[in-house]
Amino acid sequence: MMRTDTGYTLGAIVERFGGELIGDADIVVNQVAPLSSALSGHISFLTNPKYRRQLQDCKASAVILSVAEHDATDMPRILSDNPYAYFAKVSGLLNPKRAEAPGIHSTAVIDQTASIPASVTIGAFAFVGASVKVGEHAVIGSGCHLGEGVEVGDDSLFYPQVVVYQGCVIGKRAILHSGVVIGADGFGIAMENGCWIKVPQIGRVVIGDDVEIGANTTVDRGALDDTIIEDGVKLDNQIQVAHNVRIGAHTAMAGCVGIAGSAKIGKHCTVGGGAVILGHLEIVDRVNISAGTLVTKSITKVGTYTSVMPFSMHQDWLKNAAHLRHLDKMAEKLSELEKKISELERKNLE
Amino acid sequence: MMRTDTGYTLGAIVERFGGELIGDADIVVNQVAPLSSALSGHISFLTNPKYRRQLQDCKASAVILSVAEHDATDMPRILSDNPYAYFAKVSGLLNPKRAEAPGIHSTAVIDQTASIPASVTIGAFAFVGASVKVGEHAVIGSGCHLGEGVEVGDDSLFYPQVVVYQGCVIGKRAILHSGVVIGADGFGIAMENGCWIKVPQIGRVVIGDDVEIGANTTVDRGALDDTIIEDGVKLDNQIQVAHNVRIGAHTAMAGCVGIAGSAKIGKHCTVGGGAVILGHLEIVDRVNISAGTLVTKSITKVGTYTSVMPFSMHQDWLKNAAHLRHLDKMAEKLSELEKKISELERKNLE
Amino acid sequence: MMRTDTGYTLGAIVERFGGELIGDADIVVNQVAPLSSALSGHISFLTNPKYRRQLQDCKASAVILSVAEHDATDMPRILSDNPYAYFAKVSGLLNPKRAEAPGIHSTAVIDQTASIPASVTIGAFAFVGASVKVGEHAVIGSGCHLGEGVEVGDDSLFYPQVVVYQGCVIGKRAILHSGVVIGADGFGIAMENGCWIKVPQIGRVVIGDDVEIGANTTVDRGALDDTIIEDGVKLDNQIQVAHNVRIGAHTAMAGCVGIAGSAKIGKHCTVGGGAVILGHLEIVDRVNISAGTLVTKSITKVGTYTSVMPFSMHQDWLKNAAHLRHLDKMAEKLSELEKKISELERKNLE
Repeated sequence: MMRTDTGYTLGAIVERFGGELIGDADIVVNQVAPLSSALSGHISFLTNPKYRRQLQDCKASAVILSVAEHDATDMPRILSDNPYAYFAKVSGLLNPKRAEAPGIHSTAVIDQTASIPASVTIGAFAFVGASVKVGEHAVIGSGCHLGEGVEVGDDSLFYPQVVVYQGCVIGKRAILHSGVVIGADGFGIAMENGCWIKVPQIGRVVIGDDVEIGANTTVDRGALDDTIIEDGVKLDNQIQVAHNVRIGAHTAMAGCVGIAGSAKIGKHCTVGGGAVILGHLEIVDRVNISAGTLVTKSITKVGTYTSVMPFSMHQDWLKNAAHLRHLDKMAEKLSELEKKISELERKNLE
Repeated sequence: MMRTDTGYTLGAIVERFGGELIGDADIVVNQVAPLSSALSGHISFLTNPKYRRQLQDCKASAVILSVAEHDATDMPRILSDNPYAYFAKVSGLLNPKRAEAPGIHSTAVIDQTASIPASVTIGAFAFVGASVKVGEHAVIGSGCHLGEGVEVGDDSLFYPQVVVYQGCVIGKRAILHSGVVIGADGFGIAMENGCWIKVPQIGRVVIGDDVEIGANTTVDRGALDDTIIEDGVKLDNQIQVAHNVRIGAHTAMAGCVGIAGSAKIGKHCTVGGGAVILGHLEIVDRVNISAGTLVTKSITKVGTYTSVMPFSMHQDWLKNAAHLRHLDKMAEKLSELEKKISELERKNLE
Repeated sequence: MMRTDTGYTLGAIVERFGGELIGDADIVVNQVAPLSSALSGHISFLTNPKYRRQLQDCKASAVILSVAEHDATDMPRILSDNPYAYFAKVSGLLNPKRAEAPGIHSTAVIDQTASIPASVTIGAFAFVGASVKVGEHAVIGSGCHLGEGVEVGDDSLFYPQVVVYQGCVIGKRAILHSGVVIGADGFGIAMENGCWIKVPQIGRVVIGDDVEIGANTTVDRGALDDTIIEDGVKLDNQIQVAHNVRIGAHTAMAGCVGIAGSAKIGKHCTVGGGAVILGHLEIVDRVNISAGTLVTKSITKVGTYTSVMPFSMHQDWLKNAAHLRHLDKMAEKLSELEKKISELERKNLE
């Protein structure tokens, strides 16, 4: 963990982010740290009561707690209704985005029709195509490729080796990690006489503001209309978003999720790692999909959805798995037995 | 959706692709569009009867229909036995591959022993190794890396940042999207005394003609013999093809599929998104694997195969999942009950 | 398969790697090959008895066998307790890592504060940031990006277009394939009022010695503490390792595995392709996870674990899948029947 250069007093932090301070407002903290490894100068946090015991030996200079935990320690502390969000904000204050010196690296290739404000940073070996528009204070990392007509919003940060195909639009304050590919062709193919004919993909990808996209995630351009990612969406690594998908605002997806073509995901949803969502279906707002779940139909009702085969020791699994192929027969047998028993009961009553 | 520069008359389209034209042959169309958003100058299409109603308000200048739908509208229309393939061809006509000016970007690094015809386009920061052979009219995007001895067929298109390791061979008219890695080492390791020893991967990847490979897909080189992708195969994004796999001609795979080592997939197969195919097995021609399915054994018979746990509300899933671990006991109980009932029935007959 | 320049006598091989030679020690072999396609000059191997018949027509100059198979052929042969590991070593001898001429390509951009010994090779368009330390004889491929303060151990090999974010540490003899991204931000977000706040990821990735990482695999940096990959770990392609994961020494994972945040995987484990391991759990040493398995809880006992829904013809699956949603009712019915039968039996005894 890197040490930050500057610290903030607890007083300054509470002034900025609210919360109730119990303790000396002049104490200075310069980094966040977990309870178990924090040292003097660190501010730590407790969000899960099961770690409460770690407060005892905690060497941090201060700690962020929920209001309910206000007397869990004598340490200098900040009480918050939402200590994890509070911690996130304090960490953001202590660990600001790296300031990059504005300017275009001498090795970058920039089309003369591109619009690049003086506040922008462009790294080595970056390629910026014709008619590209980059917003103020944006950072385009080394080796990035922005195709013709791409638009990038203010304050966006592209790590090295992001590729954005022609015509795609990315909002403000985006964070795109290395290996992200935006706007590759959707998987559009038509069958004729046993061969596949390519369907040109003439839509774009349009991404709202405050979107973060993890390393090696891919978002395909639309077949005819656009693929849309709304404001505040957070995508982890290795996710595949197919053509004409729409992801609603403030939805978050963990790693390795796959979303098939034209699926519409609501706002404020969460999708667990490795889940697969089939195409041409709709999921309403505020739905949670569990990790590893395959969604095969539209979801019209708020809630958490799961399709997971529980894991077990292989030898136990073997015993059970055999029956999975024969549930239909088990159900039939059960029905037969029911009939036979009714018959026996009837006879017994006679 | 971008507007194309040039239009074609319906007469010219029918002359080129066949089909029956009902309406004015001189009508000009310059772009494809969905029924719901098409405007004048667009040609639309109906392939799914459930959208038939959209014909009523459709503003397109013409529409492609199946022969069966010939009187579903009064609009100028082209009737085809396969309207989706027809649409694909019309879209391909109206949206041709971008013409790139031939030439090698001044920043590209090209080994002097590489063979690069004058019709080839090579982008900025591309690296072309010793003895590479690039076919006529091929386009190698910015930042691509072609290792020593790589061969690329005529008219192939590599988007930015494709990597092809040494010795691999790619056929004609290939389309490789950004982030594709061809020919990395297969996962060959041998265990000795608790440590893994690397098995050198000395095969190649050999890819036929008319193959498209989606963004961030990886195809590993063979351990001893080659990994083979036959003609006309279409791979979506984020797919992993392990060493010594063979994928038969005209097979298509959706995103996030994983294929383990030495699996042999037949021709004209389809594999749904997120499916996993284990190693050292064979799948015959014309097999369809459903999305999310894990194929653990060879498939010797044409058909569709599925292994999906249906998803449900989490609380319903919880109730059912508990029994998944105890199917064996359920089956046992069922057998016991059957015996007891037979016994009871026998006694009742006595 | 490429032919190597130099050969070794069987005598020299046995002298180097042990094993018992039966046959002429002066026979020279210059490449490894499978039994079925080996030619004169090749050395082949038999590790699976089911291929024993192929020995009959094998044209190799020699073969590696287990001690048990010592008389399975009359060919010149080397007997080993572990013929696959022996083969791996012979192949490594005959197919050494490509010798790269040391030196920095003229197009590479190297910060003047980076430490690059003269024995290092750095390819075209590579970017090496401030304070980077590269070990002796390391090879950094074309287009790689090493962020500020990255450390790379001796004899490591980075294929083209690997990205390592600032501050990450990679041990000796690492092999990182193209598209690997080390040290991107972990997926840390906190919810406040319906919006996600980014949690800065201030840990690093620390990778031990002798680690190989496959193409397009991603390993995220820690949120506060580091993400750790211990010595001898082998990761295949398209794997996602989330923040604060620890992977124990000599553990191997096949392609497309996803590991969620803070999971601790033991030493000497194996994880099959497409498996998903949820976060904040622990798996002890020497555990095997089957392909496609979702691990939802800690594993405290050595063994093999599986959670796979068996695949079947789609129509059979349909019949069975219907019951998967109603196992709870099946179990209830079964209990009811048990009661009724007990009742009937009691009455019959009366």
